[in-house]
Amino acid sequence: MRYEEYTIEGRNAVLEAFRAGKTIDKLYVLKGCTDGPIQSILREAKKGDTLIRFTEKERLDQMSQTGHHQGVIAQAAAYEYAEVDDILAAAQSKGEKPFLILLDGIEDPHNLGAILRTANQAGAHGIIIPKQRAVGLTAVVAKTSAGAINYTPVAKVTNLVRTMEDLKKKGIWFVCADMDGEPMYRIDMTGAIGIVIGNEGSGVGRLVKESCDLVASIPMRGNVDSLNASVAAGVLMYEAVRQRIGGGK
Amino acid sequence: MRYEEYTIEGRNAVLEAFRAGKTIDKLYVLKGCTDGPIQSILREAKKGDTLIRFTEKERLDQMSQTGHHQGVIAQAAAYEYAEVDDILAAAQSKGEKPFLILLDGIEDPHNLGAILRTANQAGAHGIIIPKQRAVGLTAVVAKTSAGAINYTPVAKVTNLVRTMEDLKKKGIWFVCADMDGEPMYRIDMTGAIGIVIGNEGSGVGRLVKESCDLVASIPMRGNVDSLNASVAAGVLMYEAVRQRIGGGK
Repeated sequence: MRYEEYTIEGRNAVLEAFRAGKTIDKLYVLKGCTDGPIQSILREAKKGDTLIRFTEKERLDQMSQTGHHQGVIAQAAAYEYAEVDDILAAAQSKGEKPFLILLDGIEDPHNLGAILRTANQAGAHGIIIPKQRAVGLTAVVAKTSAGAINYTPVAKVTNLVRTMEDLKKKGIWFVCADMDGEPMYRIDMTGAIGIVIGNEGSGVGRLVKESCDLVASIPMRGNVDSLNASVAAGVLMYEAVRQRIGGGK
Repeated sequence: MRYEEYTIEGRNAVLEAFRAGKTIDKLYVLKGCTDGPIQSILREAKKGDTLIRFTEKERLDQMSQTGHHQGVIAQAAAYEYAEVDDILAAAQSKGEKPFLILLDGIEDPHNLGAILRTANQAGAHGIIIPKQRAVGLTAVVAKTSAGAINYTPVAKVTNLVRTMEDLKKKGIWFVCADMDGEPMYRIDMTGAIGIVIGNEGSGVGRLVKESCDLVASIPMRGNVDSLNASVAAGVLMYEAVRQRIGGGK
Protein backbone atom coordinates (compact mmCIF):
# COMPACT_ATOMS: atom_id res chain seq x y z
CA MET A 1 0.00 0.00 0.00
CA ARG A 2 1.61 3.22 -1.16
CA TYR A 3 -1.31 5.26 0.16
CA GLU A 4 0.74 6.85 2.93
CA GLU A 5 2.85 8.64 0.37
CA TYR A 6 -0.06 10.86 -0.40
CA THR A 7 -0.69 12.00 3.13
CA ILE A 8 0.73 15.47 3.69
CA GLU A 9 1.28 16.70 7.22
CA GLY A 10 2.17 20.01 8.82
CA ARG A 11 1.07 23.57 8.10
CA ASN A 12 3.68 24.61 5.56
CA ALA A 13 3.61 21.35 3.64
CA VAL A 14 -0.18 21.37 3.38
CA LEU A 15 -0.38 25.03 2.41
CA GLU A 16 2.31 24.51 -0.24
CA ALA A 17 0.45 21.51 -1.63
CA PHE A 18 -2.69 23.63 -2.08
CA ARG A 19 -0.75 26.48 -3.67
CA ALA A 20 1.01 24.07 -6.04
CA GLY A 21 -2.45 23.11 -7.31
CA LYS A 22 -2.36 19.57 -5.90
CA THR A 23 -5.82 18.01 -5.53
CA ILE A 24 -6.53 17.45 -1.85
CA ASP A 25 -9.39 15.00 -1.26
CA LYS A 26 -9.65 15.41 2.49
CA LEU A 27 -8.31 17.83 5.02
CA TYR A 28 -8.21 16.98 8.72
CA VAL A 29 -7.87 20.00 10.98
CA LEU A 30 -7.53 20.04 14.76
CA LYS A 31 -10.86 20.94 16.33
CA GLY A 32 -10.92 24.47 17.78
CA CYS A 33 -7.75 25.52 15.99
CA THR A 34 -8.30 29.01 14.50
CA ASP A 35 -4.91 30.67 14.15
CA GLY A 36 -3.64 32.46 11.04
CA PRO A 37 -1.89 29.64 9.18
CA ILE A 38 -4.85 27.30 9.71
CA GLN A 39 -7.19 30.01 8.40
CA SER A 40 -5.06 30.30 5.24
CA ILE A 41 -5.20 26.55 4.73
CA LEU A 42 -8.98 26.50 5.21
CA ARG A 43 -9.37 29.33 2.70
CA GLU A 44 -7.39 27.34 0.11
CA ALA A 45 -9.39 24.20 0.90
CA LYS A 46 -12.67 26.00 0.32
CA LYS A 47 -11.60 27.15 -3.13
CA GLY A 48 -11.50 23.56 -4.30
CA ASP A 49 -13.50 20.43 -3.69
CA THR A 50 -11.71 19.43 -0.52
CA LEU A 51 -13.72 17.79 2.20
CA ILE A 52 -12.87 19.39 5.54
CA ARG A 53 -13.07 17.46 8.80
CA PHE A 54 -12.49 19.02 12.21
CA THR A 55 -10.93 16.27 14.22
CA GLU A 56 -9.90 15.46 17.80
CA LYS A 57 -6.18 15.53 18.61
CA GLU A 58 -6.15 11.79 19.42
CA ARG A 59 -7.39 10.91 15.94
CA LEU A 60 -4.85 13.19 14.25
CA ASP A 61 -2.08 11.64 16.34
CA GLN A 62 -3.24 8.19 15.23
CA MET A 63 -3.33 9.17 11.57
CA SER A 64 0.00 10.91 11.63
CA GLN A 65 2.93 9.15 9.99
CA THR A 66 5.55 11.65 11.02
CA GLY A 67 4.36 12.59 14.50
CA HIS A 68 4.51 16.27 13.51
CA HIS A 69 1.11 17.09 12.04
CA GLN A 70 0.84 20.54 13.73
CA GLY A 71 -2.93 20.18 13.73
CA VAL A 72 -3.35 19.53 10.02
CA ILE A 73 -3.23 16.43 7.80
CA ALA A 74 -4.18 16.42 4.12
CA GLN A 75 -4.97 13.44 1.93
CA ALA A 76 -3.94 14.17 -1.61
CA ALA A 77 -5.35 12.43 -4.66
CA ALA A 78 -2.82 10.21 -6.38
CA TYR A 79 -4.37 11.17 -9.70
CA GLU A 80 -6.18 14.18 -11.03
CA TYR A 81 -9.94 14.28 -11.42
CA ALA A 82 -11.78 15.12 -14.61
CA GLU A 83 -14.90 17.26 -14.99
CA VAL A 84 -18.26 15.73 -15.88
CA ASP A 85 -18.19 17.75 -19.10
CA ASP A 86 -14.87 16.14 -20.08
CA ILE A 87 -16.57 12.75 -19.85
CA LEU A 88 -19.47 13.85 -22.05
CA ALA A 89 -16.98 15.35 -24.50
CA ALA A 90 -15.13 12.02 -24.66
CA ALA A 91 -18.35 10.26 -25.63
CA GLN A 92 -19.11 12.89 -28.25
CA SER A 93 -15.66 12.77 -29.79
CA LYS A 94 -16.06 9.02 -30.24
CA GLY A 95 -19.50 9.51 -31.77
CA GLU A 96 -21.02 7.31 -29.07
CA LYS A 97 -24.01 7.73 -26.80
CA PRO A 98 -22.77 8.54 -23.28
CA PHE A 99 -22.18 5.46 -21.12
CA LEU A 100 -21.41 6.64 -17.58
CA ILE A 101 -20.84 4.84 -14.31
CA LEU A 102 -21.97 6.58 -11.10
CA LEU A 103 -20.75 5.22 -7.79
CA ASP A 104 -22.91 6.14 -4.82
CA GLY A 105 -20.37 5.76 -2.04
CA ILE A 106 -17.85 3.03 -2.89
CA GLU A 107 -15.50 2.96 0.11
CA ASP A 108 -13.06 0.15 -0.64
CA PRO A 109 -10.18 1.29 -2.87
CA HIS A 110 -9.85 -2.22 -4.32
CA ASN A 111 -13.46 -2.05 -5.47
CA LEU A 112 -13.01 1.39 -7.02
CA GLY A 113 -9.86 0.19 -8.79
CA ALA A 114 -11.55 -2.93 -10.14
CA ILE A 115 -14.58 -0.89 -11.27
CA LEU A 116 -12.29 1.56 -13.09
CA ARG A 117 -10.63 -1.36 -14.86
CA THR A 118 -13.98 -2.85 -15.85
CA ALA A 119 -15.39 0.52 -16.94
CA ASN A 120 -12.40 0.95 -19.21
CA GLN A 121 -12.85 -2.50 -20.76
CA ALA A 122 -16.59 -2.10 -21.11
CA GLY A 123 -16.04 1.11 -23.06
CA ALA A 124 -17.67 3.41 -20.51
CA HIS A 125 -16.74 7.05 -21.03
CA GLY A 126 -16.13 7.88 -17.41
CA ILE A 127 -16.96 7.45 -13.75
CA ILE A 128 -18.62 9.94 -11.42
CA ILE A 129 -18.08 9.69 -7.68
CA PRO A 130 -19.31 11.85 -4.81
CA LYS A 131 -17.03 13.97 -2.66
CA GLN A 132 -18.34 12.63 0.62
CA ARG A 133 -18.35 9.15 2.12
CA ALA A 134 -16.42 7.61 -0.76
CA VAL A 135 -12.86 6.68 -1.55
CA GLY A 136 -11.04 8.98 -4.00
CA LEU A 137 -8.26 8.30 -6.49
CA THR A 138 -5.70 6.98 -4.06
CA ALA A 139 -2.54 5.10 -4.94
CA VAL A 140 -4.23 1.78 -4.08
CA VAL A 141 -7.05 2.59 -6.51
CA ALA A 142 -4.51 3.42 -9.19
CA LYS A 143 -2.68 0.13 -8.67
CA THR A 144 -5.85 -1.98 -8.59
CA SER A 145 -7.08 -0.31 -11.76
CA ALA A 146 -4.17 -1.93 -13.63
CA GLY A 147 -3.53 1.26 -15.58
CA ALA A 148 -7.16 2.08 -16.39
CA ILE A 149 -6.88 5.22 -14.24
CA ASN A 150 -4.74 6.72 -17.02
CA TYR A 151 -7.46 6.26 -19.62
CA THR A 152 -10.89 6.39 -18.02
CA PRO A 153 -11.70 9.80 -16.51
CA VAL A 154 -13.14 10.06 -13.00
CA ALA A 155 -15.09 13.14 -11.96
CA LYS A 156 -15.80 13.97 -8.33
CA VAL A 157 -18.98 15.90 -7.58
CA THR A 158 -20.41 17.58 -4.49
CA ASN A 159 -23.92 16.27 -4.91
CA LEU A 160 -24.63 13.17 -6.95
CA VAL A 161 -28.38 13.86 -7.17
CA ARG A 162 -27.84 17.36 -8.50
CA THR A 163 -25.37 16.07 -11.10
CA MET A 164 -27.91 13.46 -12.16
CA GLU A 165 -30.59 16.12 -12.56
CA ASP A 166 -28.23 18.16 -14.75
CA LEU A 167 -27.37 15.13 -16.86
CA LYS A 168 -31.02 14.19 -17.27
CA LYS A 169 -31.58 17.52 -18.98
CA LYS A 170 -28.94 16.41 -21.48
CA GLY A 171 -30.92 13.27 -22.26
CA ILE A 172 -29.14 10.75 -20.05
CA TRP A 173 -31.18 8.03 -18.37
CA PHE A 174 -30.16 6.53 -15.06
CA VAL A 175 -30.36 2.86 -14.17
CA CYS A 176 -29.51 1.82 -10.66
CA ALA A 177 -28.71 -1.65 -9.46
CA ASP A 178 -30.95 -2.87 -6.67
CA MET A 179 -32.52 -6.14 -5.69
CA ASP A 180 -36.13 -5.05 -6.08
CA GLY A 181 -35.68 -3.95 -9.69
CA GLU A 182 -36.67 -5.41 -13.04
CA PRO A 183 -34.38 -8.21 -14.24
CA MET A 184 -31.54 -6.39 -15.99
CA TYR A 185 -32.05 -8.33 -19.21
CA ARG A 186 -35.37 -6.55 -19.70
CA ILE A 187 -34.00 -3.05 -19.21
CA ASP A 188 -32.93 -1.17 -22.30
CA MET A 189 -29.40 0.11 -21.80
CA THR A 190 -28.62 0.92 -25.42
CA GLY A 191 -29.14 4.68 -25.17
CA ALA A 192 -27.38 7.49 -23.30
CA ILE A 193 -27.17 5.99 -19.83
CA GLY A 194 -25.62 6.23 -16.42
CA ILE A 195 -25.38 3.03 -14.43
CA VAL A 196 -25.54 3.68 -10.69
CA ILE A 197 -23.83 1.31 -8.25
CA GLY A 198 -24.37 1.67 -4.51
CA ASN A 199 -22.23 1.43 -1.43
CA GLU A 200 -20.75 -1.96 -0.45
CA GLY A 201 -22.89 -2.29 2.64
CA SER A 202 -25.95 -0.11 2.25
CA GLY A 203 -26.48 -0.09 -1.52
CA VAL A 204 -27.84 2.89 -3.42
CA GLY A 205 -29.03 5.80 -1.25
CA ARG A 206 -32.73 6.68 -1.16
CA LEU A 207 -32.48 10.07 -2.87
CA VAL A 208 -30.16 8.76 -5.56
CA LYS A 209 -32.48 5.82 -6.18
CA GLU A 210 -35.47 8.16 -6.46
CA SER A 211 -33.57 10.11 -9.10
CA CYS A 212 -33.06 7.00 -11.21
CA ASP A 213 -35.35 6.33 -14.14
CA LEU A 214 -35.07 2.57 -13.88
CA VAL A 215 -34.03 -0.02 -11.32
CA ALA A 216 -32.25 -3.11 -12.61
CA SER A 217 -31.76 -6.29 -10.64
CA ILE A 218 -29.13 -8.94 -11.18
CA PRO A 219 -30.70 -12.41 -10.77
CA MET A 220 -29.84 -13.79 -7.35
CA ARG A 221 -30.24 -17.53 -7.18
CA GLY A 222 -28.19 -18.19 -4.07
CA ASN A 223 -28.23 -18.03 -0.32
CA VAL A 224 -26.17 -14.96 0.43
CA ASP A 225 -27.21 -11.33 0.44
CA SER A 226 -25.65 -9.79 -2.60
CA LEU A 227 -22.61 -9.70 -4.85
CA ASN A 228 -19.32 -7.96 -4.25
CA ALA A 229 -19.75 -4.35 -5.46
CA SER A 230 -17.12 -4.58 -8.18
CA VAL A 231 -18.55 -7.88 -9.46
CA ALA A 232 -22.09 -6.45 -9.50
CA ALA A 233 -20.82 -3.39 -11.37
CA GLY A 234 -19.05 -5.66 -13.87
CA VAL A 235 -22.08 -7.86 -14.47
CA LEU A 236 -24.36 -4.87 -15.04
CA MET A 237 -21.85 -3.02 -17.25
CA TYR A 238 -21.41 -6.09 -19.41
CA GLU A 239 -25.15 -6.56 -19.79
CA ALA A 240 -25.10 -3.00 -21.16
CA VAL A 241 -22.19 -3.95 -23.44
CA ARG A 242 -24.13 -6.96 -24.74
CA GLN A 243 -27.10 -4.78 -25.55
CA ARG A 244 -25.00 -1.99 -27.04
CA ILE A 245 -23.02 -4.37 -29.24
CA GLY A 246 -26.04 -6.38 -30.24
CA GLY A 247 -28.27 -3.33 -30.49
CA GLY A 248 -31.21 -4.25 -28.33
CA LYS A 249 -32.35 -5.96 -25.18
CA MET B 1 -6.72 -11.10 8.38
CA ARG B 2 -7.42 -14.08 10.58
CA TYR B 3 -5.35 -16.32 8.36
CA GLU B 4 -2.63 -16.78 10.97
CA GLU B 5 -5.04 -18.57 13.23
CA TYR B 6 -4.98 -21.47 10.88
CA THR B 7 -1.24 -21.88 10.88
CA ILE B 8 -0.23 -24.75 13.11
CA GLU B 9 3.37 -25.00 14.31
CA GLY B 10 5.46 -27.60 16.09
CA ARG B 11 5.60 -31.38 15.80
CA ASN B 12 2.98 -32.39 18.31
CA ALA B 13 0.48 -29.74 17.29
CA VAL B 14 0.77 -30.61 13.61
CA LEU B 15 0.59 -34.37 14.19
CA GLU B 16 -2.46 -33.90 16.40
CA ALA B 17 -4.14 -31.75 13.76
CA PHE B 18 -3.70 -34.52 11.19
CA ARG B 19 -4.95 -37.20 13.60
CA ALA B 20 -7.99 -35.07 14.50
CA GLY B 21 -8.91 -35.16 10.81
CA LYS B 22 -8.25 -31.46 10.20
CA THR B 23 -7.68 -30.62 6.51
CA ILE B 24 -4.13 -29.39 6.05
CA ASP B 25 -3.63 -27.54 2.75
CA LYS B 26 0.11 -27.12 2.96
CA LEU B 27 2.85 -28.58 5.09
CA TYR B 28 6.26 -26.92 5.32
CA VAL B 29 8.99 -29.21 6.59
CA LEU B 30 12.62 -28.31 7.30
CA LYS B 31 14.80 -29.50 4.43
CA GLY B 32 16.89 -32.55 5.34
CA CYS B 33 14.91 -33.30 8.48
CA THR B 34 14.23 -37.06 8.63
CA ASP B 35 13.75 -38.03 12.27
CA GLY B 36 10.92 -40.18 13.60
CA PRO B 37 8.29 -37.55 14.47
CA ILE B 38 8.77 -35.82 11.11
CA GLN B 39 8.37 -39.19 9.34
CA SER B 40 5.06 -39.72 11.17
CA ILE B 41 3.86 -36.31 10.11
CA LEU B 42 4.85 -36.92 6.49
CA ARG B 43 3.04 -40.27 6.52
CA GLU B 44 -0.16 -38.55 7.72
CA ALA B 45 0.27 -35.81 5.13
CA LYS B 46 0.55 -38.31 2.30
CA LYS B 47 -2.73 -39.96 3.29
CA GLY B 48 -4.59 -36.80 2.41
CA ASP B 49 -4.33 -34.10 -0.18
CA THR B 50 -1.70 -32.06 1.61
CA LEU B 51 0.90 -30.29 -0.46
CA ILE B 52 4.34 -30.90 1.08
CA ARG B 53 7.13 -28.36 0.74
CA PHE B 54 10.66 -28.97 2.01
CA THR B 55 11.85 -25.56 3.07
CA GLU B 56 15.00 -23.76 4.24
CA LYS B 57 15.26 -22.87 7.91
CA GLU B 58 15.30 -19.11 7.15
CA ARG B 59 11.93 -19.33 5.39
CA LEU B 60 10.37 -21.34 8.23
CA ASP B 61 11.68 -18.81 10.74
CA GLN B 62 10.10 -16.04 8.69
CA MET B 63 6.75 -17.82 8.49
CA SER B 64 6.69 -18.76 12.15
CA GLN B 65 4.32 -16.86 14.40
CA THR B 66 5.46 -18.47 17.63
CA GLY B 67 9.18 -18.80 17.00
CA HIS B 68 8.94 -22.50 17.94
CA HIS B 69 8.15 -24.33 14.73
CA GLN B 70 10.50 -27.28 15.41
CA GLY B 71 10.96 -27.73 11.68
CA VAL B 72 7.30 -28.03 10.76
CA ILE B 73 4.52 -25.57 9.94
CA ALA B 74 1.09 -26.59 8.65
CA GLN B 75 -1.50 -24.41 6.96
CA ALA B 76 -4.94 -25.69 7.80
CA ALA B 77 -8.04 -25.01 5.73
CA ALA B 78 -10.50 -22.75 7.50
CA TYR B 79 -13.31 -24.77 5.92
CA GLU B 80 -13.73 -28.33 4.75
CA TYR B 81 -13.53 -29.32 1.10
CA ALA B 82 -16.17 -31.25 -0.78
CA GLU B 83 -15.64 -34.02 -3.32
CA VAL B 84 -16.33 -33.46 -7.01
CA ASP B 85 -19.04 -36.12 -6.77
CA ASP B 86 -20.79 -34.13 -4.03
CA ILE B 87 -21.02 -31.21 -6.45
CA LEU B 88 -22.52 -33.38 -9.19
CA ALA B 89 -24.95 -34.87 -6.68
CA ALA B 90 -26.04 -31.36 -5.68
CA ALA B 91 -26.89 -30.58 -9.31
CA GLN B 92 -28.76 -33.85 -9.68
CA SER B 93 -30.77 -33.38 -6.48
CA LYS B 94 -31.94 -30.02 -7.81
CA GLY B 95 -32.82 -31.55 -11.16
CA GLU B 96 -30.46 -29.15 -12.90
CA LYS B 97 -27.74 -29.61 -15.49
CA PRO B 98 -24.36 -29.31 -13.77
CA PHE B 99 -22.98 -25.75 -13.71
CA LEU B 100 -19.43 -25.88 -12.37
CA ILE B 101 -16.70 -23.29 -11.93
CA LEU B 102 -13.08 -24.42 -12.30
CA LEU B 103 -10.34 -22.10 -11.15
CA ASP B 104 -6.95 -22.72 -12.73
CA GLY B 105 -4.73 -21.18 -10.10
CA ILE B 106 -6.47 -18.26 -8.40
CA GLU B 107 -3.92 -17.00 -5.86
CA ASP B 108 -5.56 -13.99 -4.22
CA PRO B 109 -7.90 -15.00 -1.36
CA HIS B 110 -10.08 -11.94 -2.02
CA ASN B 111 -10.66 -13.13 -5.57
CA LEU B 112 -11.50 -16.67 -4.48
CA GLY B 113 -13.91 -15.30 -1.87
CA ALA B 114 -15.62 -12.99 -4.37
CA ILE B 115 -15.87 -15.83 -6.93
CA LEU B 116 -17.43 -18.11 -4.32
CA ARG B 117 -19.99 -15.41 -3.54
CA THR B 118 -20.78 -14.92 -7.24
CA ALA B 119 -20.94 -18.67 -7.91
CA ASN B 120 -23.47 -19.00 -5.12
CA GLN B 121 -25.63 -16.17 -6.51
CA ALA B 122 -25.34 -17.42 -10.07
CA GLY B 123 -26.65 -20.80 -8.98
CA ALA B 124 -23.46 -22.73 -9.77
CA HIS B 125 -23.34 -26.11 -8.06
CA GLY B 126 -19.75 -25.91 -6.93
CA ILE B 127 -16.18 -24.82 -7.49
CA ILE B 128 -13.18 -26.98 -8.31
CA ILE B 129 -9.68 -25.76 -7.48
CA PRO B 130 -6.28 -27.39 -7.89
CA LYS B 131 -4.11 -28.43 -4.99
CA GLN B 132 -1.01 -26.65 -6.26
CA ARG B 133 -0.28 -23.00 -6.96
CA ALA B 134 -3.66 -21.81 -5.74
CA VAL B 135 -5.14 -20.37 -2.58
CA GLY B 136 -7.28 -22.75 -0.49
CA LEU B 137 -10.23 -22.11 1.81
CA THR B 138 -8.54 -19.75 4.20
CA ALA B 139 -10.23 -17.51 6.72
CA VAL B 140 -9.85 -14.52 4.37
CA VAL B 141 -11.61 -16.44 1.62
CA ALA B 142 -14.40 -17.33 4.04
CA LYS B 143 -14.84 -13.71 5.07
CA THR B 144 -14.75 -12.35 1.52
CA SER B 145 -17.29 -14.94 0.41
CA ALA B 146 -19.86 -13.24 2.68
CA GLY B 147 -21.17 -16.60 3.87
CA ALA B 148 -21.26 -18.32 0.47
CA ILE B 149 -18.57 -20.72 1.68
CA ASN B 150 -21.26 -22.37 3.84
CA TYR B 151 -23.48 -23.11 0.86
CA THR B 152 -21.41 -23.57 -2.28
CA PRO B 153 -19.12 -26.61 -2.13
CA VAL B 154 -15.47 -26.33 -3.12
CA ALA B 155 -13.53 -29.43 -4.19
CA LYS B 156 -9.74 -29.51 -4.34
CA VAL B 157 -8.17 -31.84 -6.89
CA THR B 158 -4.63 -32.99 -7.58
CA ASN B 159 -4.79 -32.56 -11.33
CA LEU B 160 -7.30 -30.26 -12.94
CA VAL B 161 -6.83 -31.74 -16.43
CA ARG B 162 -7.47 -35.27 -15.20
CA THR B 163 -10.61 -34.13 -13.36
CA MET B 164 -11.82 -32.43 -16.52
CA GLU B 165 -11.26 -35.62 -18.54
CA ASP B 166 -13.29 -37.59 -15.99
CA LEU B 167 -16.09 -35.03 -16.06
CA LYS B 168 -16.16 -34.97 -19.85
CA LYS B 169 -17.05 -38.66 -19.75
CA LYS B 170 -20.08 -37.63 -17.71
CA GLY B 171 -21.20 -35.24 -20.43
CA ILE B 172 -19.84 -31.98 -19.11
CA TRP B 173 -18.48 -29.42 -21.57
CA PHE B 174 -15.75 -27.00 -20.61
CA VAL B 175 -15.62 -23.35 -21.59
CA CYS B 176 -12.56 -21.36 -20.68
CA ALA B 177 -12.25 -17.60 -20.61
CA ASP B 178 -9.48 -16.27 -22.79
CA MET B 179 -8.98 -13.26 -24.98
CA ASP B 180 -8.62 -15.14 -28.25
CA GLY B 181 -11.95 -16.95 -27.91
CA GLU B 182 -15.34 -16.54 -29.54
CA PRO B 183 -17.42 -13.68 -28.09
CA MET B 184 -19.13 -15.22 -25.07
CA TYR B 185 -22.59 -14.24 -26.31
CA ARG B 186 -22.23 -16.74 -29.16
CA ILE B 187 -21.21 -19.67 -26.97
CA ASP B 188 -23.96 -21.96 -25.78
CA MET B 189 -23.70 -22.34 -22.02
CA THR B 190 -27.17 -23.78 -21.40
CA GLY B 191 -26.06 -27.40 -21.00
CA ALA B 192 -23.94 -29.28 -18.47
CA ILE B 193 -20.92 -26.99 -18.29
CA GLY B 194 -17.78 -26.10 -16.41
CA ILE B 195 -16.55 -22.54 -16.75
CA VAL B 196 -12.77 -22.31 -16.41
CA ILE B 197 -11.15 -19.13 -15.08
CA GLY B 198 -7.38 -18.72 -15.16
CA ASN B 199 -4.76 -17.30 -12.87
CA GLU B 200 -4.74 -13.56 -12.13
CA GLY B 201 -1.51 -12.96 -14.00
CA SER B 202 -0.99 -15.76 -16.49
CA GLY B 203 -4.55 -16.76 -17.35
CA VAL B 204 -5.58 -20.34 -18.12
CA GLY B 205 -2.69 -22.83 -18.40
CA ARG B 206 -1.89 -24.40 -21.76
CA LEU B 207 -2.87 -27.98 -20.88
CA VAL B 208 -6.08 -26.89 -19.19
CA LYS B 209 -6.96 -24.73 -22.19
CA GLU B 210 -6.34 -27.64 -24.58
CA SER B 211 -8.75 -29.71 -22.51
CA CYS B 212 -11.51 -27.15 -22.95
CA ASP B 213 -14.16 -27.67 -25.59
CA LEU B 214 -14.72 -23.97 -26.18
CA VAL B 215 -12.93 -20.71 -25.55
CA ALA B 216 -15.08 -17.71 -24.68
CA SER B 217 -13.91 -14.12 -24.76
CA ILE B 218 -15.34 -11.18 -22.90
CA PRO B 219 -15.46 -8.13 -25.19
CA MET B 220 -12.56 -5.83 -24.35
CA ARG B 221 -13.11 -2.32 -25.62
CA GLY B 222 -10.54 -0.55 -23.48
CA ASN B 223 -6.86 0.17 -23.16
CA VAL B 224 -5.80 -2.13 -20.36
CA ASP B 225 -4.89 -5.79 -20.51
CA SER B 226 -7.74 -7.65 -18.92
CA LEU B 227 -10.33 -7.63 -16.18
CA ASN B 228 -9.86 -8.44 -12.52
CA ALA B 229 -10.22 -12.25 -12.21
CA SER B 230 -13.28 -12.13 -9.96
CA VAL B 231 -14.99 -9.60 -12.23
CA ALA B 232 -14.23 -11.70 -15.33
CA ALA B 233 -15.59 -14.78 -13.55
CA GLY B 234 -18.73 -12.84 -12.61
CA VAL B 235 -19.33 -11.52 -16.11
CA LEU B 236 -18.94 -14.97 -17.66
CA MET B 237 -21.04 -16.72 -15.01
CA TYR B 238 -23.83 -14.22 -15.52
CA GLU B 239 -23.76 -14.65 -19.28
CA ALA B 240 -24.36 -18.33 -18.53
CA VAL B 241 -27.17 -17.35 -16.14
CA ARG B 242 -28.78 -15.20 -18.83
CA GLN B 243 -28.70 -18.08 -21.29
CA ARG B 244 -29.85 -20.65 -18.74
CA ILE B 245 -32.77 -18.49 -17.57
CA GLY B 246 -33.72 -17.43 -21.08
CA GLY B 247 -33.06 -20.85 -22.54
CA GLY B 248 -30.73 -20.10 -25.44
CA LYS B 249 -27.82 -18.06 -26.56
